[in-house]
Amino acid sequence: MIIMMNAPTADQISRVMDKLCQLGLDSHLITSSDKTIITASGNLSACNPELYERMPGVDKVVIVETPYKLVSREFQQNNTVVTVGDAHFGSDSIPVIAGPCAIESYDQLYQAGVDAKAAGAAMLRGGAYKPRTSPYSFQGLEKDGLEIIKTVGRELGLPVVSEVTDPRKVDLIADCVDMLQIGTRNMQNYVLLKEVAITKKPVLLKRGLSATIEEWLMAAEYIMSGGNNQVVLCERGIRTYETYTRNTLDLNAVPIIKYLSHLPVIVDPSHGTGSWRWVTPMAKAAIAAGADGLLIEMHPCPEEALSDGPQSLTPNNFAQLMEELEKLSTVLGRSLHKNNKK
Amino acid sequence: MIIMMNAPTADQISRVMDKLCQLGLDSHLITSSDKTIITASGNLSACNPELYERMPGVDKVVIVETPYKLVSREFQQNNTVVTVGDAHFGSDSIPVIAGPCAIESYDQLYQAGVDAKAAGAAMLRGGAYKPRTSPYSFQGLEKDGLEIIKTVGRELGLPVVSEVTDPRKVDLIADCVDMLQIGTRNMQNYVLLKEVAITKKPVLLKRGLSATIEEWLMAAEYIMSGGNNQVVLCERGIRTYETYTRNTLDLNAVPIIKYLSHLPVIVDPSHGTGSWRWVTPMAKAAIAAGADGLLIEMHPCPEEALSDGPQSLTPNNFAQLMEELEKLSTVLGRSLHKNNKK
Amino acid sequence: MIIMMNAPTADQISRVMDKLCQLGLDSHLITSSDKTIITASGNLSACNPELYERMPGVDKVVIVETPYKLVSREFQQNNTVVTVGDAHFGSDSIPVIAGPCAIESYDQLYQAGVDAKAAGAAMLRGGAYKPRTSPYSFQGLEKDGLEIIKTVGRELGLPVVSEVTDPRKVDLIADCVDMLQIGTRNMQNYVLLKEVAITKKPVLLKRGLSATIEEWLMAAEYIMSGGNNQVVLCERGIRTYETYTRNTLDLNAVPIIKYLSHLPVIVDPSHGTGSWRWVTPMAKAAIAAGADGLLIEMHPCPEEALSDGPQSLTPNNFAQLMEELEKLSTVLGRSLHKNNKK
Amino acid sequence: MIIMMNAPTADQISRVMDKLCQLGLDSHLITSSDKTIITASGNLSACNPELYERMPGVDKVVIVETPYKLVSREFQQNNTVVTVGDAHFGSDSIPVIAGPCAIESYDQLYQAGVDAKAAGAAMLRGGAYKPRTSPYSFQGLEKDGLEIIKTVGRELGLPVVSEVTDPRKVDLIADCVDMLQIGTRNMQNYVLLKEVAITKKPVLLKRGLSATIEEWLMAAEYIMSGGNNQVVLCERGIRTYETYTRNTLDLNAVPIIKYLSHLPVIVDPSHGTGSWRWVTPMAKAAIAAGADGLLIEMHPCPEEALSDGPQSLTPNNFAQLMEELEKLSTVLGRSLHKNNKK
Repeated sequence: MIIMMNAPTADQISRVMDKLCQLGLDSHLITSSDKTIITASGNLSACNPELYERMPGVDKVVIVETPYKLVSREFQQNNTVVTVGDAHFGSDSIPVIAGPCAIESYDQLYQAGVDAKAAGAAMLRGGAYKPRTSPYSFQGLEKDGLEIIKTVGRELGLPVVSEVTDPRKVDLIADCVDMLQIGTRNMQNYVLLKEVAITKKPVLLKRGLSATIEEWLMAAEYIMSGGNNQVVLCERGIRTYETYTRNTLDLNAVPIIKYLSHLPVIVDPSHGTGSWRWVTPMAKAAIAAGADGLLIEMHPCPEEALSDGPQSLTPNNFAQLMEELEKLSTVLGRSLHKNNKK
Repeated sequence: MIIMMNAPTADQISRVMDKLCQLGLDSHLITSSDKTIITASGNLSACNPELYERMPGVDKVVIVETPYKLVSREFQQNNTVVTVGDAHFGSDSIPVIAGPCAIESYDQLYQAGVDAKAAGAAMLRGGAYKPRTSPYSFQGLEKDGLEIIKTVGRELGLPVVSEVTDPRKVDLIADCVDMLQIGTRNMQNYVLLKEVAITKKPVLLKRGLSATIEEWLMAAEYIMSGGNNQVVLCERGIRTYETYTRNTLDLNAVPIIKYLSHLPVIVDPSHGTGSWRWVTPMAKAAIAAGADGLLIEMHPCPEEALSDGPQSLTPNNFAQLMEELEKLSTVLGRSLHKNNKK
Repeated sequence: MIIMMNAPTADQISRVMDKLCQLGLDSHLITSSDKTIITASGNLSACNPELYERMPGVDKVVIVETPYKLVSREFQQNNTVVTVGDAHFGSDSIPVIAGPCAIESYDQLYQAGVDAKAAGAAMLRGGAYKPRTSPYSFQGLEKDGLEIIKTVGRELGLPVVSEVTDPRKVDLIADCVDMLQIGTRNMQNYVLLKEVAITKKPVLLKRGLSATIEEWLMAAEYIMSGGNNQVVLCERGIRTYETYTRNTLDLNAVPIIKYLSHLPVIVDPSHGTGSWRWVTPMAKAAIAAGADGLLIEMHPCPEEALSDGPQSLTPNNFAQLMEELEKLSTVLGRSLHKNNKK
Repeated sequence: MIIMMNAPTADQISRVMDKLCQLGLDSHLITSSDKTIITASGNLSACNPELYERMPGVDKVVIVETPYKLVSREFQQNNTVVTVGDAHFGSDSIPVIAGPCAIESYDQLYQAGVDAKAAGAAMLRGGAYKPRTSPYSFQGLEKDGLEIIKTVGRELGLPVVSEVTDPRKVDLIADCVDMLQIGTRNMQNYVLLKEVAITKKPVLLKRGLSATIEEWLMAAEYIMSGGNNQVVLCERGIRTYETYTRNTLDLNAVPIIKYLSHLPVIVDPSHGTGSWRWVTPMAKAAIAAGADGLLIEMHPCPEEALSDGPQSLTPNNFAQLMEELEKLSTVLGRSLHKNNKK
């Protein structure tokens, strides 16, 4: 159950929360500049919404049966649109984020940005802090990488996204990028989720490697219940027994998320499959399944990439994919966002 | 390694097989009316193709490194096109097979057939022998069901496909239908695969519930090495930890199969997801990923179905899907096969 | 719900089944020489057991909520003990079945039998019909293999078990062996399950590669509802994402099966792990978890085996394992069955 | 490759690392008070160990082919024994850690500690910071919980372990407990792993929910390469398709880890199965498989637990399990560590 209040007094809030407590329900207060919300979890069967609607300060009560509350379509029927620069995730327009897995140098990222922009990408991606399976693998340029992506983004007029892995560095990274990425290994790093919630910056929340759809939505709920509703979900493959692909890209998640939640969902076919060979067909399939955007790894020179070269498209492949996506989007009643800043 | 021979004598065959045996390779002879093929497995490193090409009776030698030989793209570069009536699986034209999970009565199947044909389906499906998890569930109309689908197919001019589960009934079923279906539970029922190979009828080979792509291709190899190359592969969902869908439809399999094999691959989003709600978006995604056809469960009245009602489309939903697929196929450079017999 | 009847007339049976039908329940009649049982599935909420207990010919009514009926512990509280020769599966005594994956020759199997018996194995195993992933792999000695295992079993006084894969060969194999094995690929081959039910021979039912525990019990229900209650379940590893082992041996299944069902459950750590190195620790773990027996691959000379050599123990390893198991069984309040025929 | 150096000068270190760099290998320097180690990853084929052994300052060179270096059995042949109070993980003696999932109050934890000690547990566990799937679930007593476990541990003379989730709180928690737990959701939270490495405290590293054995060992490598070799691995169930248990406890991991690594491995059957009913058989199986210890959830009153009640043993169940484990350990040639402080 979600109780929305309109400029309530502290006393009005207390009365609602006390009442919930008497019924054995767990309540959780969320306040932001423009709204006050109380979520209640537990056995709702004895709960009468009308009772709460008549309490002073209460604006509206919505019964939400699912464990996730604020992210649910039951709570909010209209799509949330997350805006980053000119890109609108969750609208009829479909933005594509492109760029290398890791930032390697100014020159490499600048070239990637030029290529991405030329093909119409809406945003530039690049990792400065890389969570790598081995402590002996390249861990990213860290602070220097951040400066590079900030600079390249401004020079090219492209909004940028980069991954955050450390709660102590969230503010630092939030100052340099337009969107914060939570990677697959950190989807259930709740300490980090709470920290990115505080920034109010748009968040790209990747699905955990073996996360159920419900766990993924619960991770988004951590961010929304922390006061940040600028969340874009990103499907990036799950772990199955199949060894032919690095992961199994789960496109079923796209229509399911659209049904269960008002949040936008995009797809990363690069990590999702692990090989450039499958990126183009799976990118097209993602859009046909209803995805609100794509995240594509592209490298000016994939064979020299320090990380994830085998799954990166070349600039040429990427430009061709964008052309195909444009036609596809139109026939599906949507449009591909094409960057038109010169 | 695959050795193709041209009208060889018994002696010529023996000499080739003896030579392979001396090198410690396993050889397997496949003869049909128009060709003679010897496959060789094992450590091929010491193997010199030229040596065999110069032996009497040998036409051509192809090195195939994968464990599947005849189904591999290395062996045959051009797509195999499997033709059933007017439907051509593996061509630019995309056929859709539709119909109920189980045949329940003449009236039910006839109505399903009329609806399927009106919307443009290329073939009618319906199960007469149903492998059900419980011995207490409806097991199909069996022989009566076969008669019904044979009759309805002829009356409507639609080719029909039905599942075979018992090697003792393969001939009986082959006489009544245009295509034999091997279901997911029988993908590794090699006794059955060898039996359908003998019929030379087109075979629809569903992926096993937890089959790797390699195991699936090896199952197809059983049919092809038995002398039947009329095999259409059908992705129908794999088993993962996700409980929100009945299965996880694995569209990655589509571009991978197209890359590894010359055989056509179609997609069954009905079993693959387990709910009608996801059938339409996933059907569109399948086509965008490059599928050569679709298998769609449609029932005149899903809420009364004896089997798999929740995942069946209504005739209206199906007709609408077909319209969307037609536009989508065109933009992808292909065309939806529309039944045009009146 | 399960209705047990005592020497009922045809009319008494009809009246019970008509009554169930009126309530919309699916009923299923099982008759054997000594008992008549009717199972009823569907919505049992409106069902009053007392009503049925007072009907003529009815002996007893048991409510069973699970989809599996006859195999459930609700239906039968005492353990079923399946006896093969001197071996009693499901008793305090723990029999071990040993032998090679495939029968390769009389000499090979005879030597394996001698080694198995010397170490105390209760039964000898060996495959004559081998379901292999590749059509080009050794498919077993077939009929000749059957003759060999029959002969060796008699000569050594060891009961034997071999796999059946073809419903047309069930009778042939049942004449040669003391126990029929249903392999993992055929767990849901219902045609085959119905056929082995008819033989009334003891059946070793391996878990399907990705079968849930419920599906596995439903496969056993097929055999029991076909009139054969001599079923021993065998855990042999499930498919997971882990690539370090061939399969993931799921010992959790042992206590769960013992809780849900009265049927005995044994463990095959050889297929379950795929490497001889893990067979000994996992065999001991299986017994500690409560398994009613073991199936161990042992080959007189594993490095020369035609199938599954890497997972086979040598006779020495096996003899040592048996000694450890004997001590372990005692401390667990059970005893290892030691073959004592000389 | 691992190069061990003996009190090297800065110049000697540089010369080794330069040489590795010239060969295109990634090198990583680990220095602690008593030793200096250089790990090298990459293509080792051109690498000659003798060459390095003759360089000044180099003590010994070990070729390790696996991606994990310091944790591998190739590098260190003898078992690492991790000592916490009287408990020795990795020795012949088997310690059991017991206690509730979450610390709820002083009284609850004190009672749990008394019960654990009476039954012979070696250590007391209890969570103060709880990573919960829902932001609306009880998140632990946090700082107050830490004070409670520190106090109870001292009063009862039991070493204590508690989970750390936030790199900013590692020092705080390290001051209150004897062992730091990394939970399953944080196994790949590398920022956190690096932070616990710095403390040099014993670490209990749980396996990630879908972590491969190699990823798990790589997580341990992060801690060891950070200078902390006091790592105990803990198997706690993996995610599979089976829904009957919360997770699938993977006991195969026990012998495999013992073979690949010198680090001790213990088993948590409580989280691993999710139900108290399977804890006792699976705990016994874990010991039979060769585990170096157990982690058992026990609550003075499971039905009132704020977290994970259904999988907690009662004190009585736990005491009985300890008696069975004692006999079992003896027959396996080991001994159960029984707390003997009065």
